Formats: sequence, structure tokens, C-alpha cells
Amino acid sequence: MVPGGEHVLPHVGRLLILLPGLGAVTTTFLAGVEAIRRKLAYPFGSLSQLGEIEGEGRAIAEALPLAPLEDLVFAAWDIFPEDAYEAARQAGVLTEADLAAVADFLRTIHPMPAVFDPQYVRRLHGPHVKHAPTKRHLAEALCRDIEQALATTGATRAVMVWCASTEVHVDPAPCHSSLKAFEAALEANDPAITPSQIYAYAALRMGVPYANGAPNLSADIPALEELADMVGVPVAGKDFKTGQTFLKTVIAPALRRRLLGVQGWFSVNILGNRDGWVLEDEGSFRAKEATKRGVLEDLLPADRYPRLYGDLYHKVRIHYYPPRGDAKESWDTIDIVGWMGYPMHIKVNFQCRDSILAAPIVLDVALFLDLAHRAGWSGVQSWLGFYFKSPHVRRGEPVEHDLFVQYEQLQRALRLLAHLPLASPLEGYSER
Amino acid sequence: MVPGGEHVLPHVGRLLILLPGLGAVTTTFLAGVEAIRRKLAYPFGSLSQLGEIEGEGRAIAEALPLAPLEDLVFAAWDIFPEDAYEAARQAGVLTEADLAAVADFLRTIHPMPAVFDPQYVRRLHGPHVKHAPTKRHLAEALCRDIEQALATTGATRAVMVWCASTEVHVDPAPCHSSLKAFEAALEANDPAITPSQIYAYAALRMGVPYANGAPNLSADIPALEELADMVGVPVAGKDFKTGQTFLKTVIAPALRRRLLGVQGWFSVNILGNRDGWVLEDEGSFRAKEATKRGVLEDLLPADRYPRLYGDLYHKVRIHYYPPRGDAKESWDTIDIVGWMGYPMHIKVNFQCRDSILAAPIVLDVALFLDLAHRAGWSGVQSWLGFYFKSPHVRRGEPVEHDLFVQYEQLQRALRLLAHLPLASPLEGYSER
Amino acid sequence: MVPGGEHVLPHVGRLLILLPGLGAVTTTFLAGVEAIRRKLAYPFGSLSQLGEIEGEGRAIAEALPLAPLEDLVFAAWDIFPEDAYEAARQAGVLTEADLAAVADFLRTIHPMPAVFDPQYVRRLHGPHVKHAPTKRHLAEALCRDIEQALATTGATRAVMVWCASTEVHVDPAPCHSSLKAFEAALEANDPAITPSQIYAYAALRMGVPYANGAPNLSADIPALEELADMVGVPVAGKDFKTGQTFLKTVIAPALRRRLLGVQGWFSVNILGNRDGWVLEDEGSFRAKEATKRGVLEDLLPADRYPRLYGDLYHKVRIHYYPPRGDAKESWDTIDIVGWMGYPMHIKVNFQCRDSILAAPIVLDVALFLDLAHRAGWSGVQSWLGFYFKSPHVRRGEPVEHDLFVQYEQLQRALRLLAHLPLASPLEGYSER
Amino acid sequence: MVPGGEHVLPHVGRLLILLPGLGAVTTTFLAGVEAIRRKLAYPFGSLSQLGEIEGEGRAIAEALPLAPLEDLVFAAWDIFPEDAYEAARQAGVLTEADLAAVADFLRTIHPMPAVFDPQYVRRLHGPHVKHAPTKRHLAEALCRDIEQALATTGATRAVMVWCASTEVHVDPAPCHSSLKAFEAALEANDPAITPSQIYAYAALRMGVPYANGAPNLSADIPALEELADMVGVPVAGKDFKTGQTFLKTVIAPALRRRLLGVQGWFSVNILGNRDGWVLEDEGSFRAKEATKRGVLEDLLPADRYPRLYGDLYHKVRIHYYPPRGDAKESWDTIDIVGWMGYPMHIKVNFQCRDSILAAPIVLDVALFLDLAHRAGWSGVQSWLGFYFKSPHVRRGEPVEHDLFVQYEQLQRALRLLAHLPLASPLEGYSER
Repeated sequence: MVPGGEHVLPHVGRLLILLPGLGAVTTTFLAGVEAIRRKLAYPFGSLSQLGEIEGEGRAIAEALPLAPLEDLVFAAWDIFPEDAYEAARQAGVLTEADLAAVADFLRTIHPMPAVFDPQYVRRLHGPHVKHAPTKRHLAEALCRDIEQALATTGATRAVMVWCASTEVHVDPAPCHSSLKAFEAALEANDPAITPSQIYAYAALRMGVPYANGAPNLSADIPALEELADMVGVPVAGKDFKTGQTFLKTVIAPALRRRLLGVQGWFSVNILGNRDGWVLEDEGSFRAKEATKRGVLEDLLPADRYPRLYGDLYHKVRIHYYPPRGDAKESWDTIDIVGWMGYPMHIKVNFQCRDSILAAPIVLDVALFLDLAHRAGWSGVQSWLGFYFKSPHVRRGEPVEHDLFVQYEQLQRALRLLAHLPLASPLEGYSER
Repeated sequence: MVPGGEHVLPHVGRLLILLPGLGAVTTTFLAGVEAIRRKLAYPFGSLSQLGEIEGEGRAIAEALPLAPLEDLVFAAWDIFPEDAYEAARQAGVLTEADLAAVADFLRTIHPMPAVFDPQYVRRLHGPHVKHAPTKRHLAEALCRDIEQALATTGATRAVMVWCASTEVHVDPAPCHSSLKAFEAALEANDPAITPSQIYAYAALRMGVPYANGAPNLSADIPALEELADMVGVPVAGKDFKTGQTFLKTVIAPALRRRLLGVQGWFSVNILGNRDGWVLEDEGSFRAKEATKRGVLEDLLPADRYPRLYGDLYHKVRIHYYPPRGDAKESWDTIDIVGWMGYPMHIKVNFQCRDSILAAPIVLDVALFLDLAHRAGWSGVQSWLGFYFKSPHVRRGEPVEHDLFVQYEQLQRALRLLAHLPLASPLEGYSER
Repeated sequence: MVPGGEHVLPHVGRLLILLPGLGAVTTTFLAGVEAIRRKLAYPFGSLSQLGEIEGEGRAIAEALPLAPLEDLVFAAWDIFPEDAYEAARQAGVLTEADLAAVADFLRTIHPMPAVFDPQYVRRLHGPHVKHAPTKRHLAEALCRDIEQALATTGATRAVMVWCASTEVHVDPAPCHSSLKAFEAALEANDPAITPSQIYAYAALRMGVPYANGAPNLSADIPALEELADMVGVPVAGKDFKTGQTFLKTVIAPALRRRLLGVQGWFSVNILGNRDGWVLEDEGSFRAKEATKRGVLEDLLPADRYPRLYGDLYHKVRIHYYPPRGDAKESWDTIDIVGWMGYPMHIKVNFQCRDSILAAPIVLDVALFLDLAHRAGWSGVQSWLGFYFKSPHVRRGEPVEHDLFVQYEQLQRALRLLAHLPLASPLEGYSER
Repeated sequence: MVPGGEHVLPHVGRLLILLPGLGAVTTTFLAGVEAIRRKLAYPFGSLSQLGEIEGEGRAIAEALPLAPLEDLVFAAWDIFPEDAYEAARQAGVLTEADLAAVADFLRTIHPMPAVFDPQYVRRLHGPHVKHAPTKRHLAEALCRDIEQALATTGATRAVMVWCASTEVHVDPAPCHSSLKAFEAALEANDPAITPSQIYAYAALRMGVPYANGAPNLSADIPALEELADMVGVPVAGKDFKTGQTFLKTVIAPALRRRLLGVQGWFSVNILGNRDGWVLEDEGSFRAKEATKRGVLEDLLPADRYPRLYGDLYHKVRIHYYPPRGDAKESWDTIDIVGWMGYPMHIKVNFQCRDSILAAPIVLDVALFLDLAHRAGWSGVQSWLGFYFKSPHVRRGEPVEHDLFVQYEQLQRALRLLAHLPLASPLEGYSER
């Protein structure tokens, strides 16, 4: 729900960004924020730092009281005890030289022991984990971690962004349907509750906004939505829209606007980082595949255009391919149909870097969630769908995958928060 | 200028579509329209036939009094005397089987002798051309052709869509600056007046809307804009946005919305049809290159984002490659920059068909121009920019290249013509 | 074993080509042979029809007494009863027009009921199959089929080429190790004996040379090699080298000759024909993957060049993608390493057609096997490795995958058969 | 001419490698040799360091008395005075870290003033050039440079490898036809004599073997061949076969062996280094295009296979694209024809690095030329064609472009030099 014109509380003090997972994405995010603060890098890819309120000629960062980079502090959890510098080196995303320039800062970030269970991420095993009799105890331990991190860093408030591995696909279960059932299930160690849900629960309990960068359900269940509404805290998700899906939600809308038929869309992805390793597990892949596959059904609606999209065969495959490390690569082949039924083909090869594309999203989502929180917005923040493969929207609301419509929605929310008139750029069109 | 809510005169009788050039695009358009009328084909790619007024759940063709396909009649000019069936076979776009099914119809279309001068299309030479002492005489001959075509076909009105070859690049000249100067130059055989301008002049003189599917200046000069305004006739252009540029105006806006840097964009195009042959000529290529190159400067504005787009190196090359015939192919390699300045690469290979993508645009532009005409809209129709590589806009108005904004503008104009409220889909957003 | 200078019996009468499987490959092969006989097509891709004895300036077909196309007759088995014309239409490889030109011929070829068991090709089910109490009885039924086909067609001799689907991977079993054990197992209905082995057994029993175009073991077992040697009949296999692997055995040898390092090779294949559907089954894929993966280990030997190829990560994936039908497509991305350890990348996209590449191989292999048979060569014909992904070589002999070395071996064998001196083109080098 | 079994003089003392051009290729070569000597790098891509005598299981470096890396010394000429370290940094091929590790060595190499004339390389201008009244005087100055470099470095002998920019295309002229005419033309400042020819002349005059890594004619003229024969010095060339052409001479032979038709081959190359800048000049491009285009005519012979290759349309384009620097990229699209005339397509994208691929070739060619010289081989060394786009062969000898045949020729020459029997691996075939 996006109410208009609410008063936005000013930013004061420090904002703590809580990061489950101190892997490639988190360390790239941390190194980048610090490098930007030291004027060693430019915030490529970040709307909160570089963007404008469209049509106003004003920077977003100027029109809205976002927390400045100088006031960000950080805490993370991980299943390995290495500090952020060591973790970054192992992630292999940034060069030694780039890491060296912020090594002192990265070395100050030591992960807290993680809530983790290899049943949900079957290919990872790490020693730095919490042990407790029930999932409720684990949630309480996380709450204490948050309290302590706030105290240690002197932050006035926090947001949490899940940057850890993809958990196995878990079907929505009865215990997900209400807060009461969820809390009983925490106590009962119900296997339907995954670690990321324990983090989300702990965050919301502590009044901390929560965003989910992975495809697992996490906060996308009625129980946690209920909690978010109850405590007045915004949530967002899920699965950062970075490489292949980013381009898919750009090209498919274009084909739809021109009403070209689409017979097939084959998407293959190769990646060699820890994420790729985890996704070789069939369970984790199912979760990922669901978010990657879902986009075309909405963007190319077979019900409205059965002759154009009724036979669309969409296949997504992800393969672990270590030679590349974090520099993943996708190849899409798209079979389209034009005038008189003639076939044509588009092939897209995206040689990208997972964490390089995700890091600025972590920043934007954290800052926008904090802003929404200060504006009194709570519950699911559909307007942040721009950043996610599988936008978490309010129950019953249609999911929007079109990157350009998502951008309009984001801009509109920012205008509301900035007390600017909602007129879209088209409004003035007839006066020309 | 798009005034709102004007009364739209109803469609009555027949609409004549006048087509300078009876080559690959025109014959593919003609064969397709007839195949659709005979229920042998489906109008893939045509918004006028398949599209909806967004958010209304109503077909465009139902909401607006477009001329139905059954009431379209045709006339063409070409430098070769062969009928449309022979011309289609030589174009090599459609299969023999597809042509056979509409051969009787195509054989009825015999081109009128063309106004042509090899000085402007240096690689083509044909026998079926008009000869006259001055360009004014040529214009008058075209006017008589139009009169006669209206009489012969029994049409009540007409639109003209330039589907002939790209003329050499001609710089705007003094004689282009006013109608008076233009008409004097016609009389004086001024070389700055190209054949396509003689066609545009004749059309407008006859009260016939004119659209330009090629990159030559044609009606995009003050003289002809003045005439269009004076006679109350709409014009549109220029250069159909079909293959590589279509995708470019989709991907570049997406990169800009995510504020990723772009260092380089290399675009190569190979095509083997008559268009490719003409574009091997340096003069014609210059005209084409200008429309193909121009798009990125607006979509990736270096002035607003010097760090992101200030060093963008954009190169476009077109090469004649006969083995493909009409099935042209483009390859783009895009060098982008993300978080911490790390490079990434997108490569797009579009194996498309020139005429297959252009044909439904001919149809849409013809029907929409006729509709605008009946609504009393005159002069430059910026809202048809969705269909063009280098949108012809009113003097002083900014050019919009973003396919998604262009689509919004088109939708908005259609809403105006259909007397629907202008609220964009976002309007209702805050009420959710 | 390739003995030199043996007397080659002349071709007389007709040669019967026996084809298990009347699907895409077989019907494309049949239609093509007939089209060539009728002067409607040119034998693209066939060495037996177009090739030369290298360095001699003489056509292979002139230097050697190959059976001419006019004297070929055909018989096939399939699990569906449709004739070759219907089967070809369903295969969807050739156009209606191309099929129409040879429809009368194709309609004369009616498949015999197949030996088939869905346990070995789990995704196919057809009604046109033989039933018998034991596998021995099935073999005898095939022998009778062969006898009858010879009689019906009036052929003097035959060769058999397996063109049916890939069977599931079956590990070599004890009953494969000797002819005696194999025959006992036929009697005992041992599940380790697959249908293709029953065909191979029947062929050899009847003195008919056998080649295997699929990756299943088939004749590549000691039992059948023993039989081939015993009856003096040549065999060849296995798995036609057509698209992706064809190029792989071309590019890898080039990288090895330049001693560039190779860190990774990722190969993905999409295809939508019946073959693709069968290969979605994990069992059949395992058989295929084995033949596709094996090539690099030999071509890029890690033992000899541990620094260059010791870390090579090779992954092959095949995905069923129906929009393409028979027009399969592969994408390879190859990560190579040059001077100073710098990485470089080769990406190959092969848009090919399975049956179009396989059909001339069926022809060449059939004609060369028949020739070898007439020369008295028997047992495994390693020199035909040029045509196969996983060359069947004599036990103990090294497998050669390098296309260029394979070609030299083929040429050398042809020279032997043609009684030409064996000097390679290099021999004369020092005399220059 | 490759005489067999000559006595090869042993390597003693130091070998001086003389390098016209201290740009990307030369500095990458120098840095790599030193890094290998310091055990910091592995000689990827170098046959002389890693290769084997095929079939013998012996390293080339062990079977033949090549000059070891430790005994190599260097001298270079360039139009800029910067030392090799500065030049390497500007070339931008190697990382700062890799250069730092050998910076002390690179800083010792100061180029001598170059013989240069912007008339032949129109896009370059540098201050560090020789001035003299005639081209004869320039040649003599180079001879004195060589003498002095030998003295300074204490080398016993030298080889020269042209690694400078591509000169404009110059047609063979009368003064190229004999040594006498050439020397008269040097005196007369004939414009048909290019700087690279002055270098080649000087080298040969001094008894120094000469190789040409660029496409300019250089030593590929009767005059200099006459000189090479007269003084008993080997020469080789021309134009290092590195990226696109390397793969072309691999794929085309494979298509030919399978007798697939080829209708079109479109090759585009983008590169952003100094070489790319020079090749934007039409004159230099013509020289390059000639060597790049020539390969297919021989590999796909239209005279022998008019139906397969008679219509082959081959187009090569090179475009300057600065964002990539030295990391050039090629894209080939190949239109092939199979059984029944059906079209198929291969697309190859090679993301390579010019200097990384060229550097080991500089090393191999230098060492092999020195070896040949010590074996008493003189004149054109056709057997080094493996390394060149446009192999310089003896007048009248056919040019071989097939990489695999070239490799056999190289191996055969090495066997001759190593006193090994010439039997090719196939010789033993019939004994199997």
C-alpha cells in the first residue's frame, strides 16, 4: 500500500544494514560502498545515488532524505568465520588491488554465527553456525544479535537484506498461513520453516525492514506479511533481478508491444561461483527456476493473445561451470514470428557478473526500505518490484514484471514520498 | 499537436494506399493484407489489427473507426514495370507457395512509372520512369496519377507511405525552408529537391497524408510541414524501426534505468536485398547511418550522466551480403560498466527479415494516419514515433527514441481519439 | 585391420540398404538419394559422391568400384507402420515441395515391424513391433526379414545402418564378452541385450555389414566383434558425428596444435525432434553424453600437457526444445588461455539440421562398408572413424577423434583399396 | 626448399632478436620471455617451448638445438623514444602487476630511432625517426644499428622479426623484381620501397634472417628473395595468423573435408589498439584485407567444386573500436549448405587478444629461423606458413592455408632438422 504525502521522518544518526550471508554479493557491496565513500569508485548501477526524479531534473538523493553513505554501518552473519576481507578474496569478484584499497575497512567486519541447516542448502557446510533446541530459540538469538549490532555500531535503526544462498524449494505450508501458526511451528521445529524465514521473522519482530535477494519464499508468506503489517514495517522481495532475467523483462515487453509472436524462449545460464554450486542441487534449482520462469507468462499473456503466445515453449536451465567464477554468462535464443507467420530469431549472450549487478541493488533496496519505514509505509512494498525477479506483491495484486512499468511504479512512489505531483510525463502531452 | 476529443469522421467507402516503391516491403505488405483478408494468414506484428487500448481490455480496432482491411485498395509506383506478383518473386521474401495463394490479387497491381533520378539512388537503374522538363511537372504528373488511382479504385480518400529505396544524404538546403522557396525550386529543378520530396509534395497538395519509411529527409523539412499544416493533412516519419534499432531502443533504455555505464556499442548489419545493395553506396549509407546512430545520444544522455555515457563510442556499420537476401542479420556488442567500474558485455544477434518486420508497420501507419486525418489532426504526428528510427517531431519538440515511452504516447493518442480518459495505468496506483 | 592391395570384388546387381528406424534421418536419406537419382538434388556432404583421392586429382567414385546410386534398394523397420512418405512428413525435415517430388518413391517403402522394447527407449511407444518368446526368436525374425527383403528387391547383398533412436545407457555385461555368452543370453532374454544388438547380431549372422549411427553400445562389444571376424564381415560405429561434436573435433585439435591452454568448454544443445524427446530421458542422455564428452580427453591430453589441459572443465548438456523441430542448435563457449596466462574466449553457435548432416553419412558409410566387404576386410573398420563421435576401433587400438587425422586415415584406406601408393602428400616434400 | 639432414651448427653465445616496432606485440613478447625466465609465467602458445615432435614423444626443445630463452637478448626500433616499460603500459595489454614484475628488465630496452615515413602508415606520427638523404642511407643506418646492437649485447648472431604497424598496400613494382633494380631504387628514393623493405634489406645484407608479422609486402618480392638466397639467409612471412584467420583456416578445411557447400562467409573484426587505428586507413586496410581474404579461395576451391564453392561470397571488414583496446573481437557468420541443398549456419565469436596470440609466434619464428640458419637453409621458409595468414612461399609453389597441413609441414621440417625419419604417423598404419 502506498499512501500519499505522508510525513517522512528525517534521517538522523546511523543506519545499520544487516546482511545474512557474507559471500560474493555482500562483500562486493561492502567494498563498493567503502570505495565510494573514499572517492575511489563511482556508484555505477545505483539509482539511489545517481538517479533522478524523472521529469523534474532533480536527483533522487536530493529530493528525498535518504541515509547518506557516510552514515551506513554494517553487520553480517555467515557459516564461515572469516572476516569480510578474507571472504571477498575467496569470492573472487574484485581484484586484489581493489580489495587492498579498502582492506582495513573489510577486516573490521566479522560475521556473527549463522542460523543454518544443510537440509535447506544441501551443498554447503560451514562451522560457524548457531545451535539451539528450537527454531524459536534461533530466532531469539538473532534478535539478540540485532540488538547487539545496533549497540556496537551506535546505529539508530536497521534494515536487513538477505544476500545468502538460495534455499531449496519449499511449498507453502499450513504454518505459513498465519502468524500464530508460524510461531507455533517455530516452537515445534517445523521443517517447513527455513532459515531465511527465521531471519525475516527476527528482523520484523525487532521492527527492522526486511528484503529478500534470493528466490526462497522467506517473507513471502501470509504469516510474515501479517507480522509486517502488525509491527508497521516494510518488506520487499524476492530474488534480485540482475542478469538474464533483467534482459528478459526488457525484451519480452518490447516484443509484446509490437505484437510479434513468440514460439520459444530457451535460456541457459552458466556460473561458477558458490551460487552456481548451490544451484546444481535440484532442490535449490527448483526455487530459482520458478522465479526465472514465471516472468514470461505475465509478460507474454497467452490468454489475451493465444495466437501469439499460446504455444510459447519456455525453458530455463542453470549449469555450474567453475572456470568463470562469479563472471556468469547467459545465452538466450528467442524464436519469434512476424507478418505472414515468418520465423525470426534473437540470440542474446550476456557476459555479466552476478555480484557486480547485485551490489547496487542491495544499496538501493536498503535505502529505499529505510525511507519507506520512516514514511510510515508498512507491509509489502510492491513498488520495489523493479529490483526483483519475482516481485513480492500484496496478496491479490497482479505481479508486474515489465521493467519499464516497474520503473514507473518506482518513480511514482518516489514522487509520493517527495510530495511531488503524481502527473506522469504524459499528462502534459495534450497541452503541447 | 494532439488536440483532444475531436470528432472523428466515420470511415466510408474505400481507402487507397499509395505506395512509392513496389519492392520487397510493398509486395510483402500487399501479399499479407490479401492473405489476411482471405483468412490465410494472421496479422502478426500489427497493432491496428491485434492491439488493445491498454488497461481498457478493448481492441483498438473496436474502440476506433479504423478502415477495415476489406476496404483497402492500392496503387504503387516503381522504376520497373513488373506487376506486384513478379516483383514479389524477385524480392524473394515470401515462399512460392505463399505467393501463389494470392497471385491473382498481386497480378492486378501494375506500378505507375516512377519519379526517379539515379543521382539520388546511385546503384539503381530502371526503365519505368517519368520524364518531364522540371520537377514541378513531375509533381503534377504524380497528382494526376493520384487522381486517376482514386477514380480507378473508387476510393474516397488516400494515404501515401514511402516504401522505396533510401536516397543519398542531402543536407537541409535554403529551398527546404519555406513552401514558397520549395515551389520555386521545383520550377528551377534545384538538385536539393529529391524524388521522395516530390512525392510528398504531390501527396500533400492532393490532401493525402504522407509517411516516410526510409531515412531520407523527404517531408522532414519546414517547407512541407508548412504545406501539411496549411492543407490540414497529417505527416509522419521517418525510417521504419524494424530490426537492430528496434532492439537498441529497448536495451538502451533498460541500461539507463538501471544507471549502468555504457562505454561502447558496436552494431553491424548484414543484408543482401536491394536495400543492402543501395546502402553500399556511401551517400545512401550516410543517410541511414544518421538515423541509426542518432538514437543512443538521446537514450543515453552524456550531458546528464557524463560518467556513465560521456565516453560512449557508438559505431554502426551496414554491409551488403547477398547470401541472405531479405533475411538480414545484425550483431551488436555492448560494453557496459557496473559497480566498482567492472566491465560486462551484452551481445545480441538478431536474425530478422526486413520486410516481414516492416510490412505490419506500413499497415498501422497507413490506418492511423487516415484516422488522424479524419479526426482533423494535421501536420507532424509525433505520436507515431513508435514506428520510426528517427521520429519526425514538431520543430522544437524533443525527439523520443525510447520504445516504451513511444508506446505510451501512441496509446495516449489513441485514447484521445477514442474519447477515453487520459489517466495512465499508474493513476489508480495510490488507491490500491 | 586394413590389409593392403586385396582384390576388390566388382559391384554387380543391387545393393540393399537395411535401415532400422524410419524416422527423420532415414527418410531424409531416402528422399535425398532418390532426388539425386532424378537429378533434382546435388549430393552435398557426401564424400563417396563428390570426394577425391587427395593428391591424385581423381574422384573417389571413379577410382573405386562403389555401388552406384542407381543400384541401391532399401528396406526399413519401424515401430510405426506409416510408409516413408508419411514418416518423412511427420519428421518435418524436408519441405512439402521437396517431398512431393519423390513421394511416389517414398510411398513404396513400408517398414517391417520393429524389434523394440520401451525399456530401452523409454519415451517412445509404437504399435508396429514384433512379439516373440525370446530375444533369439526376435533375431531369427530379423534374419527372415533380411532374407525376404533381399528376395523382394532382387539385391545381391546388403548392408545395415542403425538410424533409430538412442537406447538407454547399458554397461558392458558378462554376456557381451563372448559370442557364446551372447547367444545364451539371447535365449535367456537377458536384459543386458538391447534391441540394437539383436539387429546387429542378425545382420552379422546373415553376412551383412553393420554400422551404428547412435551412441548405444550395439556392436561395440567383444561378442559381436568375434562374430564379425568369424563371418568375415566389417562393422563400424558409433554415433554419427554431425553438429556440435563435428566442430569440437575441429577446434580442439587446432587449439592443441597452437598449445593454447583450455580451462573450460561448455556445450549446450537444443533440439526438438524425436531424438531430442528421447534424449530428455536420463538413461538415453547418459549414453549420448558419454560419446559427446569423450572427445576432449583425447584431443586435449591432460597427461601430456597438465598445465594446458589439467584443469579443463568440460560440460555437455542436451535440452529438448520443440520449437525448432529437426533444426537443432548448439552453443559452445570455450575458455582458452594464452601467453602470460591471459584468458580468451571462443563462442560457437551452430544452427544446423540433424538429419541433413546425417543423411550423407548414412550413404557414405553404407557404400564404404560394402566396398570393404567386397575387399575381404572384416571386423571393426577403424578407418571410418571420420564419420563417428565415438569411433569403434579394434580392442587395444587408440581412439582417434581429430577430424583431420581421421580424414587422413580414411584417405589412406581408400588408397589401399584403390591400389594407389600410400605416400602421404608430405612424402614428396623434400623433393620440392 | 627444405634439404634433408644437413648439419645444424650448435647454439653458442647469445641470440639477438631485432624488433622493428616497440608496440603492443613486441612489449608483450618481451615481458613474457622475461617472466618465463623468472619462472613467473608459463609459455602458453609456444610450440618451441612446449611442443613435441609428433609421434616421437620427445620435446621439440630437446630434439633440436634451439637457442634457450636465457641466451636471448633484444633490440628494437620505434618512432617513439619511450622505453619498453612505458611502451608496454601505453599498449595496455598486460596488467600493471604483470608489468611491475619485469619492469626493471623492460626499462633497459630503449628503442633506436625508426626508419619511418607517414606516407606508408598514414595515421601514425612520431618524433623518434631517422633522417637521411636517400633510402640507401637509411638502410646503411640500420646496418650500423644492427652492428652496434650485436656489439652492445655481446650476441653472436641475430634474427629480425617485423612487429610494427601495417603499411599501406603497395602493388609490386618494377624495382621489386631484382636486387639490382631494388638497390638502384633505394638510391633513387623510389616510393615503391617501403620502410619495412628497408629493414628487410638491411637485415639480409647483414646476414640476419628476417620474418614479417604484418601483411605488407616487405620481403615477399623477388629482389629480396634473391638477396636472401645470395647471402644464404632464411626469410619468412607474412602477417601473423592469430585470431579470426586462425579459426578460419581451421573451420574451412573441416567443411571442405565433409564437402559441405559454403555460400557466404562474413567476417567482422573490431579492435581498439594502435593496429586498429592504423587499419582504419583505407590503404593499410587494403593490405590487411588481402591477406585475410585470400585464405578461403585456396581452402574452398571453386574450380574443383563449383557447385559447393562457386558462389561463395566472402567479405572481411575490420573496424576500429576503442573501448576494447588490445582485446579485439571477431564475429563470423558462415552460411553452409547440406544434403538436398538445405542451409545451415555457423556463427563464431572470438574474443581474443591480439598481442597475447602474437607474442609466442614471435618467439617461435625467431628461434626456428635461427635454427634454420644454422642448418644452412636459406631463402623462403615455406614450412613456417603455420604461423602466417599469407604464407610467403617460394615463387611457383602453391600456398597452403590449411592449419593442419601447415602443422604437418612444420613437423616434417623439424624432423628433417632433427635427423628423424620422415615417416608420417600414418606410415605405420597398415602394420596395425
